[in-house]
This record gives sequence, C-alpha cells and structure tokens, in this order.
Amino acid sequence: EQEDPAEPDPEETSFPGCQTHLARVVALHIKCPPGVLQDLELAAIFVSDAQYNRNICFEASPAVVRLYLLYNHWVAKVLLYLFILVNLSLAFFEEPAVVALPTWATMLVELLCLLVFTLRLVHYARVIPRDKFWKDPKNICIIVILLLTLVDMMVYGALTASGCKAVRWSRVLRPLLLVNVTEGRQLRRAFRSIRNALPQIFYVFLLFIFSLLIFSLMALKLLGKRDLKTLEGEPYFTNYLSIVFDLYVLVTTANSPDVMMPAYNFSFVFAIFFIVYILVNTYIFMSVFLAVVYNTYKKHLKEEVRQLVRAKRQKMSRAFLVLQEQAQEGGEPVVTQASWNQLVRMVRPDISDPHRLLLWSVLDSSSQGRIGKAAFVQLADLLNIEVITLKSRPHPLQSLCPALYQSAPSRLLRRLVQHRAFVVLYDLIILVNAVFIGLDEDNPLIAHSEWVFLALYLLEILLKLYVFEPRAFFSRHSFWNWFDTIIVVSALVATVVNSALQSSGGYTSRQILDIVFILRVLRLIRVVDSIKRFRTIINTLIRIGPAILTFGQLIIVVYYVFAVVGMELFKDKVRFFEADSSDPAKAYCGNALLRGTAFAHFNYCKNNFNNIVSSFVLLVELTVVNQCSGFAAVTHASARLFFILFHIVVVIIIINIFVAFVLEAFFVEYSFEKSDLLTSLERKIKELELAAPQEEMDGGLVNAMETMDNELGSGPSDGAGPAPPHLMFKIASKRYRTVDALLQRMFESDLDPEDLDESSDPEAQSSPSFSNPSFSSA
Amino acid sequence: EQEDPAEPDPEETSFPGCQTHLARVVALHIKCPPGVLQDLELAAIFVSDAQYNRNICFEASPAVVRLYLLYNHWVAKVLLYLFILVNLSLAFFEEPAVVALPTWATMLVELLCLLVFTLRLVHYARVIPRDKFWKDPKNICIIVILLLTLVDMMVYGALTASGCKAVRWSRVLRPLLLVNVTEGRQLRRAFRSIRNALPQIFYVFLLFIFSLLIFSLMALKLLGKRDLKTLEGEPYFTNYLSIVFDLYVLVTTANSPDVMMPAYNFSFVFAIFFIVYILVNTYIFMSVFLAVVYNTYKKHLKEEVRQLVRAKRQKMSRAFLVLQEQAQEGGEPVVTQASWNQLVRMVRPDISDPHRLLLWSVLDSSSQGRIGKAAFVQLADLLNIEVITLKSRPHPLQSLCPALYQSAPSRLLRRLVQHRAFVVLYDLIILVNAVFIGLDEDNPLIAHSEWVFLALYLLEILLKLYVFEPRAFFSRHSFWNWFDTIIVVSALVATVVNSALQSSGGYTSRQILDIVFILRVLRLIRVVDSIKRFRTIINTLIRIGPAILTFGQLIIVVYYVFAVVGMELFKDKVRFFEADSSDPAKAYCGNALLRGTAFAHFNYCKNNFNNIVSSFVLLVELTVVNQCSGFAAVTHASARLFFILFHIVVVIIIINIFVAFVLEAFFVEYSFEKSDLLTSLERKIKELELAAPQEEMDGGLVNAMETMDNELGSGPSDGAGPAPPHLMFKIASKRYRTVDALLQRMFESDLDPEDLDESSDPEAQSSPSFSNPSFSSA
Repeated sequence: EQEDPAEPDPEETSFPGCQTHLARVVALHIKCPPGVLQDLELAAIFVSDAQYNRNICFEASPAVVRLYLLYNHWVAKVLLYLFILVNLSLAFFEEPAVVALPTWATMLVELLCLLVFTLRLVHYARVIPRDKFWKDPKNICIIVILLLTLVDMMVYGALTASGCKAVRWSRVLRPLLLVNVTEGRQLRRAFRSIRNALPQIFYVFLLFIFSLLIFSLMALKLLGKRDLKTLEGEPYFTNYLSIVFDLYVLVTTANSPDVMMPAYNFSFVFAIFFIVYILVNTYIFMSVFLAVVYNTYKKHLKEEVRQLVRAKRQKMSRAFLVLQEQAQEGGEPVVTQASWNQLVRMVRPDISDPHRLLLWSVLDSSSQGRIGKAAFVQLADLLNIEVITLKSRPHPLQSLCPALYQSAPSRLLRRLVQHRAFVVLYDLIILVNAVFIGLDEDNPLIAHSEWVFLALYLLEILLKLYVFEPRAFFSRHSFWNWFDTIIVVSALVATVVNSALQSSGGYTSRQILDIVFILRVLRLIRVVDSIKRFRTIINTLIRIGPAILTFGQLIIVVYYVFAVVGMELFKDKVRFFEADSSDPAKAYCGNALLRGTAFAHFNYCKNNFNNIVSSFVLLVELTVVNQCSGFAAVTHASARLFFILFHIVVVIIIINIFVAFVLEAFFVEYSFEKSDLLTSLERKIKELELAAPQEEMDGGLVNAMETMDNELGSGPSDGAGPAPPHLMFKIASKRYRTVDALLQRMFESDLDPEDLDESSDPEAQSSPSFSNPSFSSA
Repeated sequence: EQEDPAEPDPEETSFPGCQTHLARVVALHIKCPPGVLQDLELAAIFVSDAQYNRNICFEASPAVVRLYLLYNHWVAKVLLYLFILVNLSLAFFEEPAVVALPTWATMLVELLCLLVFTLRLVHYARVIPRDKFWKDPKNICIIVILLLTLVDMMVYGALTASGCKAVRWSRVLRPLLLVNVTEGRQLRRAFRSIRNALPQIFYVFLLFIFSLLIFSLMALKLLGKRDLKTLEGEPYFTNYLSIVFDLYVLVTTANSPDVMMPAYNFSFVFAIFFIVYILVNTYIFMSVFLAVVYNTYKKHLKEEVRQLVRAKRQKMSRAFLVLQEQAQEGGEPVVTQASWNQLVRMVRPDISDPHRLLLWSVLDSSSQGRIGKAAFVQLADLLNIEVITLKSRPHPLQSLCPALYQSAPSRLLRRLVQHRAFVVLYDLIILVNAVFIGLDEDNPLIAHSEWVFLALYLLEILLKLYVFEPRAFFSRHSFWNWFDTIIVVSALVATVVNSALQSSGGYTSRQILDIVFILRVLRLIRVVDSIKRFRTIINTLIRIGPAILTFGQLIIVVYYVFAVVGMELFKDKVRFFEADSSDPAKAYCGNALLRGTAFAHFNYCKNNFNNIVSSFVLLVELTVVNQCSGFAAVTHASARLFFILFHIVVVIIIINIFVAFVLEAFFVEYSFEKSDLLTSLERKIKELELAAPQEEMDGGLVNAMETMDNELGSGPSDGAGPAPPHLMFKIASKRYRTVDALLQRMFESDLDPEDLDESSDPEAQSSPSFSNPSFSSA
C-alpha cells in the first residue's frame, strides 16, 4: 500500500535547488565592497525567512534585496489581501446581486484588482531568478487566471454589448488567487493534504459507490414491484437512478427516516434492509473515510514538516556563513556575541535587551562569548518561542502617592482583591446576572438591575487596575482582561446610548438593544476561565485557532466556487417573498413546479441561489444536511449531481480533514511534552533567577501576575531579602507564533533527530567551499 | 491532566492475586501421587487459559479441575448464551407483545432461565476459591440481578393477581447478564473503555452544555421578542427550555434547517448566529468529543492489553513450572520436546504432526531438543498465529483416471481455468448479469436469461473443482469459494422451486422470489474480490469484524434497556394503522394530540414504542437522526430528556468509541509491521522450504492455491526437479483467532518490551521456591 511519497510544493523544495544560486549570492556578497550589501542585512533576511518559513530564492544584488524586503513588507501583504477581498466581494454587486451596481463599475474595479495582482507578480518576478519564476506552478496559475479573467471580461463585454446572453465564468477562478499568492502557503498545504489523500479516498469511495449500487439494485428488486407510494403519492423505489440518489442522501442522514417509511409501513422486515444499509454505508464507510483521510493527512504532513525544518536549518546555515568568524587558527568558525546581537536587533527590533541576553545565554551555554553553527541554527526556533517579559514596574499610584497606596486599608483591599474569594464572588455575580438576563427585561426591576451589574463589573475592573500595574494588566497576552474590559465598556456605552434614546423620545433602537443583549450574554463567558478544566480545553481551542482559520479559507474557496456555479445554474428558480407579501405564488416559492413539495411546505424559499449571501447560507445548510430535492424539482434530476459533488468535496473530504486536524491537535495537547529547546530556555530562565513564579504557570496570566505582584510589590516595602530583578520572563509555552510552529510541534516526536541533523550537514558536502574558513567575511 | 490509571477488571488482575493460591495448586499437585492429577492436564489448562486469556483461579483438586474443564466446555457456553437469548427474547411475548403469550408462560420460561443462570453461577462458585468468588463484582452483579428479578416477578404476580397495575421493571436488568457472565470479557472491556472515558467526556460535555445555554440565552434575547412564528404557527423561540432543546437537536442536525428558517426569513443577519452555533457546537465540539473519547480509549486499552499480556506470560510460566525438567546439573530448567509434544497435542488436538514440528522448530531454534522458559512462554502467542496447512494432495480425478486427467485437452482446460483471463471473463459475466438484473424481469427474455447465468456460474464452480483439489477448494479459509458455492446453489434451488410453483399453478411465492432476487444481487459482490485495492479494504473490515460484533453486543445491551424503558413510557401513545384502514384516526396516528404535527404529516406512526421490534427500529432511527418531537407532544415536554439521554449515550459516547476503534484498527493495517514472533515463524517456514509460494501472499487464497497447484500438481507428473514436500504452510498473517490477539497486535508497537519481560520474572522473586529446581516434577 506504499503510495508515492508526497510530491512537495516546489516552493517548499526550492531551497535545496536554490543552493547553487545561493552560492552565487554569498559569493557575490563576499565580492561586494562592504557597506554596499550589508552582511547583517543579508543574515537578518535569512534568519527572518527561516523564522517564518519563507522559501523565496532572491538575487543577491542590493537592489533586489531592497525589492525583496519591500515584497515582504506587511503593508504590501495587507494591500494584496485587501484587493483579493475586494475582488471576491465583487460577487455582491454583480448579477445576481445583493446590491446591484452597473456592469462597468464592477468591471472597472475588477480591472484595478487585476492590475494590482499583475504588479505584485511582476514585483515577485523581479525578486526571484527568471528560471525559478517560470518553474513555479503557482506563478503560472496566477498568470493563467489573470489572462482568462481578462479574456472572459472582454468576451462578456462584447456579448452583452451585442445583446447576447453571456456568463461570467471566470468568476470561479477568483478564489484560486487566494491559494496561489506567495502568502497562501498554509492554504496550499491544506490543498496538498487533500490531493495526497485523494488516491486512497478514491478507492474507498469506489467501494462505497459499489455498495450503494448493490443496495440500490436490491431495493429496486425488493420494493419496486410492490406498488408502494411515497408521502407525496409518487411511486416508491421504481426508478433505479432515483433509488441510488435517495440512498446516497440517506448516508448524509438528511432523508432519514422518511425514505424508509413506505417500506417500513408495508412490513417491518424491510427495516432490516435499511438498518443494514445505514450500518454499512453511514457508519462503517464514513469511519473508513475518516480513517483514510486522517492517515494520509498525518503521513504527508509529517513529510512536509520534515522538509520545512530542513529548509529552515539550511537558511540558518547560510546566515551563519555570512556572519561567521574564525575564533582560533584552524578552529571551527563561530559567530561572536556582538554580531549576533546586531543580527537579533535587526530581525526582532521589539525584543528587549535582557530578553536578547537571555536568548544568547541559552545558545552560548558555556559563556564563551561566541557560538558555533549548531547553536546558531537554533536561533530561528528560539525566536518562535514566545517569551513574555514581565516588567516588575511599581504601581503608578505607589509612585504618586506611596503613603496612601501602602496604608493599611489599601493593603487590605489589595489582599482582598487578590484573594480567591474575589474570583468566586464575581463568578456568583455572573451567575445571578445570567438569571436576570433570562427574565423578562420589560419588568422595570430587571431593567434597572442591569445598571447594578454594569456598576459591579466596572468596579471589578477598577479594583484590579488599582491592584495590578495597568500596563501588565493590559499586556498583549492577557486575553481575558482585554475581553472583560472591552465587553464591559462597550456594554456601558451601548446601554447609555440606549437609555438616552429611550428617555429623549421613548424610541428604542432595536439594533442597539440587540448589541446590548449580545454584550450582556458574552459577559457570561468569562465564568469559563475560572474553572481549570474548562480553561485547558478552551486554551487548546484558542491555540489551534489560527490553523482552523486556514480551514476557514479553504472552506471559503470551495464555497465561493460552488456558490458561483450554483448561481449560474439555479438563480431565480426559487423566489422568496417577504412575510407581508400577499402574492399567491408565495405558497410555492414563485415556481409552480414546487407546488405540493416538501420544499414549499417547509417554506424553504429563502434557501436559494439568488445572490451570493443566500448561496453561502444555503451551502452551510447543505454541509449540515444535504437537502436538495427542491432544486432537482425546479430544474432537472441531474441537478442532484451538483449537490452530490458538493457533499463529496465538503463533507467527505474537507470536514474529515478538519476533524483529523482537530484530533491530532488534541492528541498533541494530551500527550504534551516540551521540546528540548523549550526546556533549555526554561532551565536557563530559572538558572538566571529570572523566572516568574511557577505555581500558576499554566493558570491564567492574571493569576500569575497576582502572585508575582504579591512577592514583588510587597518585597521592596519590607526591605528584607534580596531585591528581586526588575524583569521576569515567562514562557507562553503553549502558544505558537506561526501555524508552522504548531505543525512542527505536532510532529516533533515523530521526526527523526538524525534526519534533521543530516539536513544541516549535507550542504557542507554539496558545496564544500562554504565550510572553507577562508571565505569567512571577517 | 493525569487521570487515575485504569481501574482494571478484577478478573484481569486476579491472576497476580491468585499467586499464593496457585502456589498451593502446584504444591498440592506435586504432593499428589502421579496419575491422580496429571501434570500434562494441568499444564494444558494453563496453556489453554493463556491462549484464550481466561483468568479464572481454580482449586487444584482433581474434582475441581474436572469441573473447570466442564465449565469451559463449549456446550456449556453455548447453552448459557442460548438461555440468555431466550431470556432477552421474552420481550417479544410480554406485554406490549409482538406475539402475546399468557403471563404464566413467559414467567415460567423466565424462571427456567434464572435457574440455568443460578446453576452456572453455582458451578463457577465450585470452581474458584470462595474468597475470590465474593470479591468479584460481576458475581455480585449476577446474584443481585437474579434476586431483583425474582422479587420483581413475585411482586408483579401478586399485584396483577389483585388487579393492580404493575410494571415489570426488572426487565432492564436482563441485558446486564450479557455483560456479567464470565464469557462477556470483551463486552466488559468495552464498558470499561466507556467508564474510563467518562470523566474526560464529562468536562467537555459541561463546556458544551455551557455553550448551548449561552447560545440559547442569546437566541431568546435576540429572537424572543420579534413575534416570529414557526411553520406550525407556534411562537418561535420564546421559551428558554424549548430553545435549549431545539438547539441541542440542531447539534444532531435533525432539525436543520427548519429551526433557523423563521429567523432567517425575518433577516439573513440571524443566519450568522446559526452558522456560528453550528460551527462551534456541531463541528468543533463533536470533533473534541471524538478526540477525547479516542484518546482515553487508546490510553486505557493499551494499559489493559499490557495487563493481559502480563497475565498470559504468568500463566505460561506456571505451565512451564509443571513441566520443567533439569537438563544438566545446576543448569536452567527446560522442557523436553517429548513432553512439549504431549502438551500441544492436548491443547490443540487438531494440529497436524508437521505443523507441531514446525512450531517446535520455531521455539527450539538451536535444535537442542529442549527449550527454556523464555521460549516456552511464547507458545501461547504462537498457537494464536493461524498457520494454514496446505496439503498437496493429488486431485481425486488424477488418482481415479490419470490418463484422462493428464491428457492434452484436460491440461489445456486446466491452464485456461487458471489463467487470469478466466477471472476477467467471469467478472464481465457478472457485470452483464448486473445489467440484466436491473432490467424488468417480466420480459420473458430477461426471465430466461437467469437460467443462462445460473448455468454459467455453476459451470465456473465445476471447472474450478475440476482444476483444484476439492478439499483445498473448500478449505476453511476460502471465504469467497464458500460464498460463491452457497449463493449459486441456493439461487439454483430457489429458482427451481419458484419455476416449479409457477408452472404447476401459475402461483408465484413473493417470499421465494424475494430470496431469489437477494441471492442474485449478492452474487455480484464477488466482483470486489478481483480488484486488489478493494480486497485490502474488505479484508480489513472482515478482520475487525469480530471486534465490531462486540460493539454490536454493546449496542444491543443499551438499546434493550432504552427499549424496555421506552415501552413503559410511551406504549400505545402512538398507533399505527395499516394502509387499508379507513379509520379517521389514521391521519393523526390515533392520538388527537398529534393532529397537525409534522410527526403525523410524515406518517411516522409506525415509529413507536408499542413492541420491542418497533422500539428497536425506532432507536436505530434515533441514532441516525434524533427526531422525537412527536413523543414530547403526546406525553410531556420532559419526555425529551429520554431522547437527549439516548443521544448522549449512543451517539456521543458509543458511536465515538466505535469510530475510534475503526480508526485505530485501520491505522494498524496501514502501518502494518509484523510482530517478531510472526516473522520468526515465517523465517522458519521458509528455512524448512515448507513455504507456500509467496508472490500471492496477500492475494486471495484461491490464487495462492492456484499457484501452488501449478507447481505441485504438475511437478510430479513432469518427474523433474526435487519432489516437493507433501505439506506446505502459509501464515494467515492478518487473521487473529481472538479479539484479544487483535488488540494485542494493535498496541504491540507501543508496549514496552522490558515491561513485558519484567512480568515473567517477578514471580521468580515473589515466590522463589518455584524456581528451586528440587521442586521440578521430573
């Protein structure tokens, strides 16, 4: 069963191929007069590329390096995504439109978008060598998409001008840009996961279809001649193809138990047939699909992560080559602390000096003032470990008014707020609030109670701000503090606005009231953070959040394609009438073919393809349960193929890959072992006595800071014991700066360490000139 | 997150505790005069217990050993399961009955069953030591079940005699017997898996419920005041509890998209609410449930398998102690080939002499005529590897009429039948047959074609029987040969009977025709075996079949309990009227409360709890989609709790464990590495040149035999080359004799080898007297 190994993304593997090219880069750089092309700048680019797993091969001339930096600038990326978004959202304004705009307007915007994409591509072409550019399929894809779109726009313009009916078919290509831009690496990886799983899925799918056909044939023979009728009075199970379709839908559980009722009503022996069918096709085959998807997903992702890690080490080796110096005659090349400091300052200007010192002391464990290649290579991973710097600043009030802040009542208050009971008290308040929210808000007592709760929540925030240093309270990682404050302040503003409106003219804005309600209910979520068991689950979910967003993009790409096709196929076949409409066509969604169908009976008229928003909502519904008989009724039985295809792509493939991903991420959490690097960083932090107290390590940050504040805040005032350092570090051990880091973490235990070590060596063999110390730039 | 380790089944761990007791067994046995308690008999019991993982502590007196053998006799077990089945099937005849029997009759049968169970328990109590018996919760369970049932029967008898209404509540206890009998080990393990997963599931479930409550509160606030109406004209989302229920059902996807339609029709902004809800609660939470269940399932099963393996080795060590002899003065104790042969002949009388010799040569790899303990302990695992003995008997026709059988036309025919094209030809015939089946059988041409196909299939079997040795063709492992022959012969008989009936009186029996149709369609399945990719998937499914049956038992236990409770709660609330009934109550299932509901509209009247069969069918439907609004309508809103409970137990817990099991089993298949023992057995087979040809090793057995027959059948006639051996072996490497062997295989790679080695040693330390050679029974 050995599949051919993962065919990797050219981008992912371009690095080894880039070797000879990079040899030129470094050679050129060495030949250049110093100052024209800064060593450090080049090294910093290599490190930054390694850190974010960028694999772009760039020319080494100073101009290109400038262009490359510009290409990677966040503004350029944001602009690109903005224009992709604009391009995608054109579907709102094109026929069938949510808000109709004239064709020339949307065409003009689209042309602008195409221009931006072309510019970006040209920019890319200027950065990377020409031969690399043309070998990369994603560039070819973009060019083809742009050209096809242009052709389609011209054809469409010409046809509509001459009064013919035309279809803007190139709209299905738009989401593919999202996949093919340089930044869409995660999305491309997801697509590759799917492509790799396809052969395995295909065979299971064939077997599944075979089973479906056999069961359908049996159903036809057993039930076709019994003159049974469906609920709508149609003949039951007499047409082979419609039996196949009905039984396929049964797998999605959408028409259970309706499809079996006529047979079951006739005799309960037939229930056995359906039970066996459900067991085999719904439970066993769907589990096998999940197993196959999960298995290939895991296998190929592991291979990709291995390549990623290898490419990362190679880039770090190159950075080392640029910076290396000869410490002793004939010794191993090293990088000195001075140049390393400059490098890190360039790569991550936001890192504080003590933090940088900490990183250095992890790498230079024997304090020699220089590090070898093996240690240097770890820098990229080290930079990806998020270290939280806790500054033990004194509270501003202490500086302003120490007498008051250190007075007995103030200290008592601070002790009270930091006590566990304070948290419990506010959890109780939240629960009482939940009950009040549930009660009828027209009761004036209830309406006024809202002000009390708002005041209580505000008081909580103010008390906490009194006790904790404000900048620490609002640090970047204090998710729940930010959450609380934003929710409470927004609720306050919305409530005040609402009351002002109400008292001024007795007028209540429904929208503002809705927002107030939502904010009130959201406030209740905070209670989850108090229960440790919940916190771990929630934290895992938050942690895999960015990766889930990749699936979100994937789903949007697929939905968009299906929505555009669906709109062309089914637009205006089903019409929705507002509740106050008195049109008799309302009873059958404006299409006489729907008269008496379940679709019309359930008033599903708004489930249509009449614009992009309805299409997306309908596609979500189809993902949950595949109900599409209405659309087959208004067009043709073959319309069902569209829905079956959608089910195969979204439910059988994408949802299973999503489940596989969540499963794997949870297993990593459950079997959590820290990586070696993480442990050595933690050890170093402890060694240097810079660690934030451990006991609440996995607790919320607020708790950790409380403890710290306890010790630090009161320490100096007592004047006893050694003065604590002004800075403390804490590793946000379970946070990952990038999705790649999460993936690397997921497969770390499976990666062969020799396999990785080997990766940093071979370039020494393949291009031995690099390891020649005479090339060192010192 | 460290859970307390798996609390193992006392039966599983009884063995270590049984140590002192077994010391007595062996001591006693050594004291007994030889012949009273045969060494070999005792050793054979130990080996057999190890092989089937039986962990029963028995007294060592000859009488008890006889009783123990009787207890484990297959007739006793079959009888026990027969009576359990009878006891369970009483539900067919008790009120509400499928076939009503008088109460005294069912009570009498139940009393008989109770008597049998009591006898079996007394038998068990006689076998194992008294203190062990009372310490085992499963015995206590059985006693409690029996007593409660007796009490219930008496109370019920008294109450009905005095005309009061009585409930036979003890019926829910019946399926628990299936779990608590000694033989229900697999089922108990499945229940333990569930119990172990419960704490983890519980916290995720709480979080899920919290999310459900928060979303419901938001829905109430956003939608409750908008005066929306459901399809039935009821107020929409105004009652908090019914919102909670509706949103819970949405997780099961049963009421999607109906539950969101009123809000969506009002404004499509509300669709966002439902989409977020579905994303969070249906997709993310359900994946997390699967992850949690899978994770704990894997963890605890691994621990249990480790204990099983340990207990097995201990039992083998005991068998060794009984048989050991002193080869040299001061040397390690050994077992001689002679006593080993006697032992294996006792344990597995069905094993042929060459096969036994093969096993011996695997264990005694250095051909010393004796084996040490380490080798001896492997015997139990070795016996569990299924070795297929292929006897190269000459074809009977060759013996009877060699001239004809070896003639040129006969050899050509045999070559043709063995050719790949023969298989392809019959695959094509099957496909043509499939088309003919699909066509209308009332057409006389089609009807007559059936005879042609039947003749073709018969011809195929006869040809194969001509070519292959019949006993090899119908060997125990030739699944598809058996399948073919049974299907074709049955179809022939049924078709003949049908035509006879038709021609005699023009009367067609619908039942016989149905059977004919089913057999015809089943015949098509054979085509799957011709495609290698399909065969691997199917083989995996067949292999995990026995373990799936364990889940089948589990499901039946749970269904039975829910069915009995459901019958008490909902019997006769909904009535089903036959299609030809003209009762006006038919339109609302005989219950006025259902007038106008969707339940009545869809004619779900037969989905009721009026007897055990309907209940089971309904529970299957509820497993697929949880639609229960009808039952809440005819009784009370709180009836929904019954259905929610069912969903939690069956879908969230059991189906997830089932999926986890299938996933794990498939991963084992995909990452198949043969165990050490298997490899050494295979190597030995090859070394001894007894291997059946390898090239078709993973192919169907028919192919393997064809190849073999090619070489063997024609070999002697040519008279050239060395005469091949008369026996060949082939390892059915992927078949497992017991579920335990499959489980052991699944976790083999994760089991720590030292951990296992250790297990066979400690008894040497804990009871050093055993390793004293002076105790050897030689």
